Amino acid sequence: YPRLRRFIIAPYDRRYRWWQMFLIILVVYSAWASPFEVAFKKLGTGSLLVPDLVVDAFFAIDIVVSFFVAYLDKSTYLLIDDPKKIAFRYVARSGFTMDVASTLPFQIIYRVVTGKRNGSSLFAFINLLRLWRLRRVGDLFARLEKDIRFSYFWTRYIKLIFVTLFAVHSAGCMYYWMAVHYRIKKMTWIGSIMEDFESRGIWLGYVYSLYWSIVTLSTVGYGDLHAMNTGERVFNIFFMLFNIGLTSYLIGNMTNLIVHGAIRTFIMRDTIHELSRYASKNRLPDSMKQQMMSHLQLKFKTVELQQEEVLADLPKAIRSSIAQHLFQRTVETSYLLKGISEDLIAQLVPELKAEYFPPKVDIILQNEIPTDFYIVVSGELDMLTHNNGTEQFLQRLGPAEMAGEIGVIFNIPQPFTVRSRRLSQVVRIGHHLFQQIVQPHIADGNIIISNFKQHL
Amino acid sequence: YPRLRRFIIAPYDRRYRWWQMFLIILVVYSAWASPFEVAFKKLGTGSLLVPDLVVDAFFAIDIVVSFFVAYLDKSTYLLIDDPKKIAFRYVARSGFTMDVASTLPFQIIYRVVTGKRNGSSLFAFINLLRLWRLRRVGDLFARLEKDIRFSYFWTRYIKLIFVTLFAVHSAGCMYYWMAVHYRIKKMTWIGSIMEDFESRGIWLGYVYSLYWSIVTLSTVGYGDLHAMNTGERVFNIFFMLFNIGLTSYLIGNMTNLIVHGAIRTFIMRDTIHELSRYASKNRLPDSMKQQMMSHLQLKFKTVELQQEEVLADLPKAIRSSIAQHLFQRTVETSYLLKGISEDLIAQLVPELKAEYFPPKVDIILQNEIPTDFYIVVSGELDMLTHNNGTEQFLQRLGPAEMAGEIGVIFNIPQPFTVRSRRLSQVVRIGHHLFQQIVQPHIADGNIIISNFKQHL
Amino acid sequence: YPRLRRFIIAPYDRRYRWWQMFLIILVVYSAWASPFEVAFKKLGTGSLLVPDLVVDAFFAIDIVVSFFVAYLDKSTYLLIDDPKKIAFRYVARSGFTMDVASTLPFQIIYRVVTGKRNGSSLFAFINLLRLWRLRRVGDLFARLEKDIRFSYFWTRYIKLIFVTLFAVHSAGCMYYWMAVHYRIKKMTWIGSIMEDFESRGIWLGYVYSLYWSIVTLSTVGYGDLHAMNTGERVFNIFFMLFNIGLTSYLIGNMTNLIVHGAIRTFIMRDTIHELSRYASKNRLPDSMKQQMMSHLQLKFKTVELQQEEVLADLPKAIRSSIAQHLFQRTVETSYLLKGISEDLIAQLVPELKAEYFPPKVDIILQNEIPTDFYIVVSGELDMLTHNNGTEQFLQRLGPAEMAGEIGVIFNIPQPFTVRSRRLSQVVRIGHHLFQQIVQPHIADGNIIISNFKQHL
Amino acid sequence: YPRLRRFIIAPYDRRYRWWQMFLIILVVYSAWASPFEVAFKKLGTGSLLVPDLVVDAFFAIDIVVSFFVAYLDKSTYLLIDDPKKIAFRYVARSGFTMDVASTLPFQIIYRVVTGKRNGSSLFAFINLLRLWRLRRVGDLFARLEKDIRFSYFWTRYIKLIFVTLFAVHSAGCMYYWMAVHYRIKKMTWIGSIMEDFESRGIWLGYVYSLYWSIVTLSTVGYGDLHAMNTGERVFNIFFMLFNIGLTSYLIGNMTNLIVHGAIRTFIMRDTIHELSRYASKNRLPDSMKQQMMSHLQLKFKTVELQQEEVLADLPKAIRSSIAQHLFQRTVETSYLLKGISEDLIAQLVPELKAEYFPPKVDIILQNEIPTDFYIVVSGELDMLTHNNGTEQFLQRLGPAEMAGEIGVIFNIPQPFTVRSRRLSQVVRIGHHLFQQIVQPHIADGNIIISNFKQHL
Repeated sequence: YPRLRRFIIAPYDRRYRWWQMFLIILVVYSAWASPFEVAFKKLGTGSLLVPDLVVDAFFAIDIVVSFFVAYLDKSTYLLIDDPKKIAFRYVARSGFTMDVASTLPFQIIYRVVTGKRNGSSLFAFINLLRLWRLRRVGDLFARLEKDIRFSYFWTRYIKLIFVTLFAVHSAGCMYYWMAVHYRIKKMTWIGSIMEDFESRGIWLGYVYSLYWSIVTLSTVGYGDLHAMNTGERVFNIFFMLFNIGLTSYLIGNMTNLIVHGAIRTFIMRDTIHELSRYASKNRLPDSMKQQMMSHLQLKFKTVELQQEEVLADLPKAIRSSIAQHLFQRTVETSYLLKGISEDLIAQLVPELKAEYFPPKVDIILQNEIPTDFYIVVSGELDMLTHNNGTEQFLQRLGPAEMAGEIGVIFNIPQPFTVRSRRLSQVVRIGHHLFQQIVQPHIADGNIIISNFKQHL
Repeated sequence: YPRLRRFIIAPYDRRYRWWQMFLIILVVYSAWASPFEVAFKKLGTGSLLVPDLVVDAFFAIDIVVSFFVAYLDKSTYLLIDDPKKIAFRYVARSGFTMDVASTLPFQIIYRVVTGKRNGSSLFAFINLLRLWRLRRVGDLFARLEKDIRFSYFWTRYIKLIFVTLFAVHSAGCMYYWMAVHYRIKKMTWIGSIMEDFESRGIWLGYVYSLYWSIVTLSTVGYGDLHAMNTGERVFNIFFMLFNIGLTSYLIGNMTNLIVHGAIRTFIMRDTIHELSRYASKNRLPDSMKQQMMSHLQLKFKTVELQQEEVLADLPKAIRSSIAQHLFQRTVETSYLLKGISEDLIAQLVPELKAEYFPPKVDIILQNEIPTDFYIVVSGELDMLTHNNGTEQFLQRLGPAEMAGEIGVIFNIPQPFTVRSRRLSQVVRIGHHLFQQIVQPHIADGNIIISNFKQHL
Repeated sequence: YPRLRRFIIAPYDRRYRWWQMFLIILVVYSAWASPFEVAFKKLGTGSLLVPDLVVDAFFAIDIVVSFFVAYLDKSTYLLIDDPKKIAFRYVARSGFTMDVASTLPFQIIYRVVTGKRNGSSLFAFINLLRLWRLRRVGDLFARLEKDIRFSYFWTRYIKLIFVTLFAVHSAGCMYYWMAVHYRIKKMTWIGSIMEDFESRGIWLGYVYSLYWSIVTLSTVGYGDLHAMNTGERVFNIFFMLFNIGLTSYLIGNMTNLIVHGAIRTFIMRDTIHELSRYASKNRLPDSMKQQMMSHLQLKFKTVELQQEEVLADLPKAIRSSIAQHLFQRTVETSYLLKGISEDLIAQLVPELKAEYFPPKVDIILQNEIPTDFYIVVSGELDMLTHNNGTEQFLQRLGPAEMAGEIGVIFNIPQPFTVRSRRLSQVVRIGHHLFQQIVQPHIADGNIIISNFKQHL
Repeated sequence: YPRLRRFIIAPYDRRYRWWQMFLIILVVYSAWASPFEVAFKKLGTGSLLVPDLVVDAFFAIDIVVSFFVAYLDKSTYLLIDDPKKIAFRYVARSGFTMDVASTLPFQIIYRVVTGKRNGSSLFAFINLLRLWRLRRVGDLFARLEKDIRFSYFWTRYIKLIFVTLFAVHSAGCMYYWMAVHYRIKKMTWIGSIMEDFESRGIWLGYVYSLYWSIVTLSTVGYGDLHAMNTGERVFNIFFMLFNIGLTSYLIGNMTNLIVHGAIRTFIMRDTIHELSRYASKNRLPDSMKQQMMSHLQLKFKTVELQQEEVLADLPKAIRSSIAQHLFQRTVETSYLLKGISEDLIAQLVPELKAEYFPPKVDIILQNEIPTDFYIVVSGELDMLTHNNGTEQFLQRLGPAEMAGEIGVIFNIPQPFTVRSRRLSQVVRIGHHLFQQIVQPHIADGNIIISNFKQHL
C-alpha cells in the first residue's frame, strides 16, 4: 500500500474498518429507536434520550473523520489523499448535508433556544431523518456481497431478515401511533379489543403492534386485529401494497439463491445420468459402466484441484510464478531435465499442464500413439505391460519420475501402460511443443540427450 | 432520416412522441375513471362528465392524426408515407373501429337523439370500452423495455405496480357496484357493517372498496369485510382465481429481475472463489494468493473497458473506424511506424488488440518467448531487468512508446520485464500478423527498418 | 407415411386425432361430474344419469378402437400394425384394465342384477374411478408442450388453470359431502351460518363450496366459513398441505415461463448496454455511437433471417438442398460463374455463407485485405470510392451482381467500398475455399477466367 | 473393494447401509415423538415410554458400531481402517458427545438415582436433544441428491414435505403446551372456544394444534383460532417470521425443479421454432420444411444414443475400451480392414466417430467432396445413383459393409448417394487421419490395398 499524507486515513485501514463496523451497530440501534420513539413518544424524551444523544455524538465524530479519509479515484485507480479534494467530494456528493441533518439533536436545540420543553410528536418525526443512516447498512451489504470471505447466501439472508424486521417494526410503530392519536379509542384497531391499551404499558402495546404487523406481512390475516377507521384502512392499504412487493422480493431472492446453489448438483447429476443412459442404450457390460461411473464421481469430488481454466484469466506473469512454485523442483529433479539451464526451465515450466488422476485410471495405454510425456508430481503410478492378454507389473513410479518419454523420443507406439495407484498429480507436455522450446537451446539439448542415454 | 411527403409525420418525430406521451396520461385517467364511474354512477353524469368529454376529444384528434403518421414496412425496413397505404393499414388492422367505438360519447349522443336524460348504468358499462385505450400503455411498456435509456428493472417494476393498482381499483369498484345494486343492503359486504354506506359519501365507499380489494389481492383476508350474498361470492371466486394468477405473475417477474441482476455478482464470486480454493488446495504462498485475488478484483472493476468481444458483432467497417478513432494517432507517433503510408496504417490499425492492465501487472516477462509487441496508449509502464535475482529499473514508458519489439524483431527471448505502473491501456499485435501485413508494402518495410536502426 | 394393414389406424391419422380431441371434451365433463355427483348425490341418479351413460358408451367404443390403432416401436422407429402385438401391448401395459373399470356403469349393473334401486353413496365413490380418464388430459398436454404449433406459454397456462379449477372443484365437493353426512348440521362449516343449507338448492350449496374452496386455496381465508368439527379440520389440514404444494407449483411454473420469455430481451439489452458503456468509457464520438446502436438494433430485428447456426445441426443433404433452393439461380446467373458445369455449381453452393445487411452498412472497405467475394441475392448495394477524403458514388449493384471479386482475383487491397442501400442479402465465399473447389475442374476454371476477362 | 481389518466395516457395506436406513425410520419416530411428548406430557411417561427406550437402545448400539466403521480419507481417497484413527475422528469431530447426550434416558437415570418419579416437563424438553438425530436425515438427503439412482425431483420433494410436516407438528405441539401451561384457560387460543380442552383427549387436542399450525403456515389464517394472550402472540410472531422463510424456501425449491425440468423442452422448442421461422422467412417449399422438422424431431428422440460429448470427459483408456467393445468386431469383419494386425485395429478403433441416422436421411451425397468413409454398425443403408434427375437404387448395405471408401481412396467426388433405410448406426473416420494412422504399418497397408483390389 502506498504511503499517505499525515492525518489522512486509508479507506481500507484496519482501524477505520472497525470504526465503521461499530457505527453499523449504532445504525441498527437508530433504525430500531427512531420509529419506536414515534409510537411511544414518552421514551424519546425519557429513557431513550441519553442513548440517542450518545449515538448522535458518535455520528458527529464520523462526520469530522470523513474529512480525513482518502478515496479511490475511479479513472486512475489511485488513492487520493489531498484534503481539499476529499472535502470537496464529501460535501458535493450531498451525503454531507444529510449526514449533518440526521445528526443534529433538533429537540435539544429547540429546548435550548426557546427554553420550552416541547413534547410534540413533530420532533419524533424529525428524528426519522436518522433513518438516512440506513444507507450505511446498504453499503455494507453491497460490500459484503462482493467479499468472498463471507458466504453470499448468509449475507443475503441476513439482509432479507433485516429488511423484513425493519418493515414489520416500522409498520407496527406507525399503526400504534395512529391508534394513540385517534379521538375515539374504541374505534381503533387495538382499542376495539382493549380500550385502555395506553395504560397497559409499552411492552404490551409493542407486542400487539408487532403481532398485527407480522400477521399482515405474512398475509396470515387472522382478523382478530383489523383496521377500524378510515385512516387505519388507508394506512393498511399502503402497507399491504408494500408487502406484495416485499414478499415477491423475498421469494425472488430465495429462489435465486436456491437456483444458484443447485447448479453444481444439476451439472453433476445430468452428466452422470447421460453417461448412464449411454451405457444402457449401448448395452455396455456392467464392469465398464461401473468404471465410467466411479471415474466421474471421483472427478466431481476432486474438482477443486483441477481448475486450470480459472488460471487462464490471470496475466502470464502470475501464471508463470504459480507454475514455478508448484513444479520447478519436480522438473529440475527429473532425470531427463537434470542439469539444464535456468532459462530453459523458466520457459518449459509455464507450458506444463497439470492433471489429477483418481486411483486406478489408465494414463497411458500400451500401443497408443505417443503425444505427451508425463512427470509425476505427487502420488504413485504403476507401469504395466500386456502380453498375450495378461497384465504384468513392471515398475512403480514416484514423484519426479517420468512416464511416456520413451514412446515420444523414439516416436513409437507407447511400449507400456501407465496407471495411477492413488490420487496422483502429473504434469504433461506435448512433444511438439517440447521440441520447439528446446531447439534454440543447443547446449541444453545435448544435456537432455546424454541424460536419456545414461538412463537407458 | 429521409424526407417524407407534406403533412406526413414520421413515427419517431419528437413532437409526435410528446403527443403520444401526453395521451398516455389521459389513458391513465381513463383507466381510473371508467370503473370509478360504474361504481359511483352520479360522478359519470356529474363532476367527471366534462373531463371525460375533454379526454374523448383528444382521442378523437388522435384518430385523425393517425391518418398522417408514416409507418415502417417490415420487409424492406423503409418508411411508408403513402397516405392511402397508411389509411388502409390503420383501418384494416381493426384498431380504427375500436378506437372510434371507445371515443364516441354514447351518453351524450343518446341524450341529443332522444332528448331524455337517462342515468341508467348501461352507459357506465359502455364507457368501459374506453379501457381499450390501455392497449397504448401496453405498447408503451413493450417499447420502453427494449429502450436501453430506461432501466429494465424500473420499467418492469412500474408496469407491475400499474397492473396491480388497476386490478385493485377495478375489483373494488365492481364490488361496490354490486353492493349498491343489491336489494337488501344489510346483506351486502359493506352494508353488513355500515347499513347507510351510500349516504356516507364517495370517499368512504371508495376507501372501503379499495381496502376490501387489496385485503383480498394480497391474500391477507382479515375477514372484517367479506361476501354476504351469492352474487358477491361468485364475483369473489373469480377475483381470487385471477389473483392467484396475478400474484404468480408478480413473483415470477420479481424473481426474473433478481436472478438477472445477480448473475454478474455470481460470476465474479464463483471465479474468485474457485481461484481461492485452487490456491489453498495447492498450498500457494499467501503473497501469490494476494496477487491473484487483487488482479481478479481489479479486472471485474474495469470490465466495461475491456469489451472487445462486444465489438466482434459489429460489421468490419464500424470496427475499423472505432479502431482508427482510438489508436491511429498513437500508432502514427510511435517511433517504429512513424512515416509509413496511410494505406498500411489503415490495414494495421483494425488488427490491433486493445488491453487494459491494472497497476503492478507484468505485461512481458524477461526470457519469455516473444510473440507480440505493444504500444502504450495511455498510462505508464516500467521496463525492468532481472540480474542475479534483483530487479533493476531501466526506463519508464509513456503513451506512444513501444515494448517487446526488440525480442520480436531479433526473435530472441524478451530481454526485459515490462510492468504497468498504473491503470494502462496498450495495443498489441502478433509478429506473424505484422509481417504478413507489412510484407507487400516494400517501401514501408524499409521505413520501419530504418526507424528501428535509428532508435538503436 | 407407410401403408398399414386393413382396419388398422395410424396413430397420427387425422380422423383418429379428432376422435381423441372429442374424447378429451368428454373427459373434462367426467372430471367435473364425478366429484359433483359425490357431493350432490341425487344428481348422479337423476338428471346426470343419462349424460353419464352416454359418455361411458363413447369410452367403451374407444376401448374397442384401441385394438386397431398401430403404435410406434421405440427401438426401430417403425409403425407396428400387427393386431396381436397391438392387443398385447394395450392389455399388458395395464391401461386396459383401468380403462374397463372406469367405463363399466356399476350402478346400473347392480340395479339390473339385484333389482334394487340403491342410492348409497358407494356408487358415487366408485364413479371416481372415471377420474382415471384424466390421464388422457395429461398425455394431451405432454404432447402439446412438444408441439411447436401451439404456444408453450398458453399450453402450460391452460394446464395450470385446469389443474387449479379441478382442485378447487374436487375439494369443494368433498367438503360439501362432509357437511351433508355430519349428524349435527349446526356443527358443520356451512350449517353453522345456514342450518337448512340442504333444502336451499344445489346451486347455492355449490357456490358456497367453491367459495370456501377457493378462499382456502388462494390463502385469503376470510374466516366467514371455517371448519367446525374434527373431521372437517382433518380434511382441511390435508387440503391446505396440498395447497402449499399447488401454489408453489403455480408460482414455479409462472416464474419459469417469465424467465424464459425474458431471455431474449435480456440478451439484447445487455449487448446494447455493454456497447453503450464501451462507447462512453472510450469517449467515442456521438455519430459513431449512433451507428453502432442502430446496427445492433436492426440486427436484433432481423435475427430470424440469420440463423445459419440452426442449420448446422441438419444433415449435409438437407443443408445442400436448402442452399440450392435459395442460391443456385443467383450463382448461375452471376457473370463470373455463368456457363460452368452443374457438378461445380453443386459443390460450390453448399459452401456459400448467406448474410443479411441492414441499410447503410459497409460490407467491403476500400484498402482492406481481400478475403471473400460476394454475390448479391436481394436488395441493393452501392459501390463507392474514396479520393482525398471525399466519397464518390460509382455504381449500384443489384441481384446476381458481384462485389469484391477483383481484389480477390488480383490479390490486391480492395479498390472500392461496398455499402448496403437497403436490407440486402448477399452470399459470400472465401477465396481459398473457392480455389480449392475450382482447381480440379480445369474446363470450368477456363470458363471462369474467360468470363472475368470479358467482364473487364 | 480392498480388504479391511477384522471387525472393521466398510461404510458402503450393504448390511451397514441397511442398518443406517433402519435407523432413519427410528429418527423419523424421534422427530415426531419428541415435540409430541412436550405437548402431551403424560404420554412421555406413559404409553410412549417403552418405544422411546427401545429407540434409544438402538442408537446406543449405533454409537458402539460407529467405532468399527472405516472412513474415506479426503486427501488420499483411501479407506482408513485403523481403529485408533476411527475412534479419534468420531470423538473429535464432536458428533460423539451429542450422540451420547441425545441417547441417555435422563428421566430414567433421574428416577433411579433419586428414587422420585418426577413428571416435570423439564425432561420432555431435555428429550428435544433427540432432535440432534435429525442430522442423519439431513445427511441421508444430501447423499440421495447426489445418487442418480434416485430421482432428484422426488428426493427433494420428499425432503420439503418432511421439513414442512416437521415444522407444522413442532409448532402445533409447542402451541398446545403453551395453552396447557397458561393460568386462565379461557384466555388461550384453544380454551377460548373449548374451555375443557384438556379433558377432551389427546386426539382432539392434536388435531386442533395441527389445524392451527397449518392454517398459520399456509397463511390461510381463517381466524377461528388465534392467539389470545401475550405469550401466544410472541410465539406466533416468531412462527410467522419462520414461515415467511419456509414458504420462500418451498417456492424457491419448486421453481428450481421446474426450471431445470423445462430446460430440455425449451431447447427443443426453441431449436424447432427457429428452424421453422427460418423456413417461412426464406419461403422454403413445404416438403423441405417437413424434412427439416422431422429430422429435428427424431434427433431429439434419439438424443440419448448420440452422447459422444459426454464420453469426452472420460480418460482415454476408458474411452478406448468402450470403442473396442462397441466397434472392434464390426471393423475386423469389414472387407477393407480384414486381416490387419491387432495393433493397427487398437489404434484405429478409438478414433472412430459413431453416428446415428434416423430413417431416410442422406449420409453421403453424390458428387460431394469425399472427406470420410463409413462402416455400418447396425441398421440398413441404401446406395443410390442419380442419372438425369431420376434416382436409381443400386445396393443395400448391412452391418460391417462400407460406404464412401471409393471416393476417399481415389479422391474423386462421391459416385453414389447413401441414405439410411431405418434407424442406423455408422462409424466414420476422416481420410487424413486414416492415412496418418496406417502409414507406419507398411504390412497392414499392403493388406488393405490388396483387400480393396479384390473387392473391385
